[in-house]
Amino acid sequence: MTETTDYRPMWSELGLDLDKHDALLAALGQAYGDVFLSQENRPETMGYFDFVMGEIHGLRVKELVDARAAGRIVVGSFCVFVPEELVLAVGGVCVGLCAGADFGTEAAERYLPRNTCALIKSFFGFTLEKVCPYISACDLVVGENTCDGKKKAYETFADLVGREFMVLDMPNTKSGEGRAILKRAYLDFAARLENLSGVTITAENLTAAIELVNAKRRAMHRLARLRQADPTPISGLDALLANQVFFYDDPERFTQSVNNLCDELEKRVAQKVGVAPAGTVRIVISGCPMAVPNWKLPAIVESTGAVIVGEESCIGERGTQNLVDGSGDTVGELMESLVDRYFAVDCAVFTPNPTRAPHTLQIAKDCRAHGVIHFALQFCAPYQMEAPLLEREVEKGGVPVLRLDTDYSTEDVEQLRTRVEAFVEQLRGESEPIAHRS
Amino acid sequence: MTETTDYRPMWSELGLDLDKHDALLAALGQAYGDVFLSQENRPETMGYFDFVMGEIHGLRVKELVDARAAGRIVVGSFCVFVPEELVLAVGGVCVGLCAGADFGTEAAERYLPRNTCALIKSFFGFTLEKVCPYISACDLVVGENTCDGKKKAYETFADLVGREFMVLDMPNTKSGEGRAILKRAYLDFAARLENLSGVTITAENLTAAIELVNAKRRAMHRLARLRQADPTPISGLDALLANQVFFYDDPERFTQSVNNLCDELEKRVAQKVGVAPAGTVRIVISGCPMAVPNWKLPAIVESTGAVIVGEESCIGERGTQNLVDGSGDTVGELMESLVDRYFAVDCAVFTPNPTRAPHTLQIAKDCRAHGVIHFALQFCAPYQMEAPLLEREVEKGGVPVLRLDTDYSTEDVEQLRTRVEAFVEQLRGESEPIAHRS
Repeated sequence: MTETTDYRPMWSELGLDLDKHDALLAALGQAYGDVFLSQENRPETMGYFDFVMGEIHGLRVKELVDARAAGRIVVGSFCVFVPEELVLAVGGVCVGLCAGADFGTEAAERYLPRNTCALIKSFFGFTLEKVCPYISACDLVVGENTCDGKKKAYETFADLVGREFMVLDMPNTKSGEGRAILKRAYLDFAARLENLSGVTITAENLTAAIELVNAKRRAMHRLARLRQADPTPISGLDALLANQVFFYDDPERFTQSVNNLCDELEKRVAQKVGVAPAGTVRIVISGCPMAVPNWKLPAIVESTGAVIVGEESCIGERGTQNLVDGSGDTVGELMESLVDRYFAVDCAVFTPNPTRAPHTLQIAKDCRAHGVIHFALQFCAPYQMEAPLLEREVEKGGVPVLRLDTDYSTEDVEQLRTRVEAFVEQLRGESEPIAHRS
Repeated sequence: MTETTDYRPMWSELGLDLDKHDALLAALGQAYGDVFLSQENRPETMGYFDFVMGEIHGLRVKELVDARAAGRIVVGSFCVFVPEELVLAVGGVCVGLCAGADFGTEAAERYLPRNTCALIKSFFGFTLEKVCPYISACDLVVGENTCDGKKKAYETFADLVGREFMVLDMPNTKSGEGRAILKRAYLDFAARLENLSGVTITAENLTAAIELVNAKRRAMHRLARLRQADPTPISGLDALLANQVFFYDDPERFTQSVNNLCDELEKRVAQKVGVAPAGTVRIVISGCPMAVPNWKLPAIVESTGAVIVGEESCIGERGTQNLVDGSGDTVGELMESLVDRYFAVDCAVFTPNPTRAPHTLQIAKDCRAHGVIHFALQFCAPYQMEAPLLEREVEKGGVPVLRLDTDYSTEDVEQLRTRVEAFVEQLRGESEPIAHRS
């Protein structure tokens, strides 16, 4: 990571353990260079995202600190079910806290069973080892009762996080009573935000916030559509990066940057310029979120010569799909629209979850993908258990599926690579004339 | 297991795999003999429970088959949140299906991730290997959205079970909206039962059903109180057996049998007759359910010379605690009382779950226990994650806690025994003068 400013006094003030934080940033910078900067033929406008990642613990954190100094609240969340719109409506800043690194696992396991998913261990580890400036910069950290792991881990985390903390309740089913649970959660969240910020949510500020987030989502939809071209104009890794930064960056600047990227990609598509030749095996990733800096599986997939063209994932389609209807005239109407948008998200924590498999198949078809790789974090019961059902449906639709369970460690990289290579080879055989096979 | 009748034609008609079923029964009979019949100084009235266990796949199943032939419905469930009262109200028979044996695990793992708890693998295994006459004898099998594992496994199980199947939704929190979820589930369940049986639930039949189950619970409360005596008049294993049979047996006969047992135990208490000398280390077990034939941990604990005097468990206090207020005049009022009783159960799937730790401490104090052993099934995130919080609270109250995670395999028996022995030794040291220590 390039640093032009000395952020160490800020980090120190935020209570970070500077030595451990140095070690984390060094590892992060190294990984980023290896995975991203080594890619060939990247869009020039990815430079913005390289800058953001270079400043992920620097400039962006300073912005949060400055925002708080200016009287705005900062709210951290772990999940796509926490509506950024409400935070923006009270003039706050919303940042994603989902940690994607194998850091502080030993410390985390003092509080968590070993059979806890890597994502939960990671945010415990980051907190316990004092290396997350985002958590430290928050006025409020918000959990949500999605999976058992998070639901119960938050009971312990509440005492460790050192910030105001609240948990949004979540339903298991998409019943009327289930919707009432989500609505109650969002009303409670809105009330807490108003209380914390001193700003009342009005039809005006909520409409503006909805538009701000819709614009961000629209830009991501544009990016998703451009990736449907063959040759695809951007690597899956770079597109994942944009999806990851979606949760961190200032929304207006982010939208502009994604649109700049899309302008460049449009030209590429028109000129049939891609990151890989036309006919390259195209993969959609489906499953668990890939939080920064979890680039493990996409890096493996693209190292085999395939290209990732879509993500049916929280960091991807589940975060960006659908817009909130911002046409309501009252806070009540707008809240209903907000609940409707989020209630439609087809996370595997719902039962049954009948739209996810057809949705994944549709993404695969829209993206002209040859295959789907289902990614589940080890010990993530909802996604692991839904995987065979999704596999069956998607394969019925004619798209082969490879199911992989993994975590954030590097131990299984070669094993995964072997399985992905075999899958890509199989897809290559099915999609191209024999003469063209390597 | 003694068999006086040839049940093989019935098992065959129920679609069981007779060879595998023979193997299961042989193993079960062997285990029962080793664990239960080898105990010394058992109450004579435990003879009834020995008979029930000897006929668990025989006479009791025949009763279910006969009940169906007589036009009654048979409903199987996996959880204390499925209200037997509603099944009884429509004249049906309710049986617990929670399987507690390491059987068919390999078959189960074709459908489930390896990191699924033993209980879920067990009911998949029993179904896939065709060795459970209870499932085969059911008109309706009922699941419930408690943990992620069950919630998502039921989506697959629905296609495997071969019976009508429904899932009751469950809340995560004890909010008003959470209660509405449970009420909706019970109303849907009642409607399904009425539809299936052709019997309408009335204030009369529901009141009678509530009284039938309350009587069963009252008998178990009586048993729980008698175990508070020192010396304790019954082993933890035998009391667990009564708690297990609670879910299987005809309710009226069961209540009478527990009351007969209690009559005998009352005499023992008056005469200071116990299964172990006064002053023996007394243990309360807290945590996950122990379904038949999961007697592993209690057998280990009592083999160390300690005695189990209470169970804060689904097969125990969580199944038997509280009565339903049967004073309502209308079905609506009675349904509200039913929801109230079940909504008070403090299962670890709720968040927060603040009453469970004080409740466990209270049980320990009431039972004059020296220590609590927390039992979690491996991969059961709710109980594993709640364990350290419970440990902290209970120890704050002056009662030491040992936390154990295990499954149904026998691989870790010696390791568990070593840890339990050390804990019991520690409690012995704390509770008795040095001179008395072994």
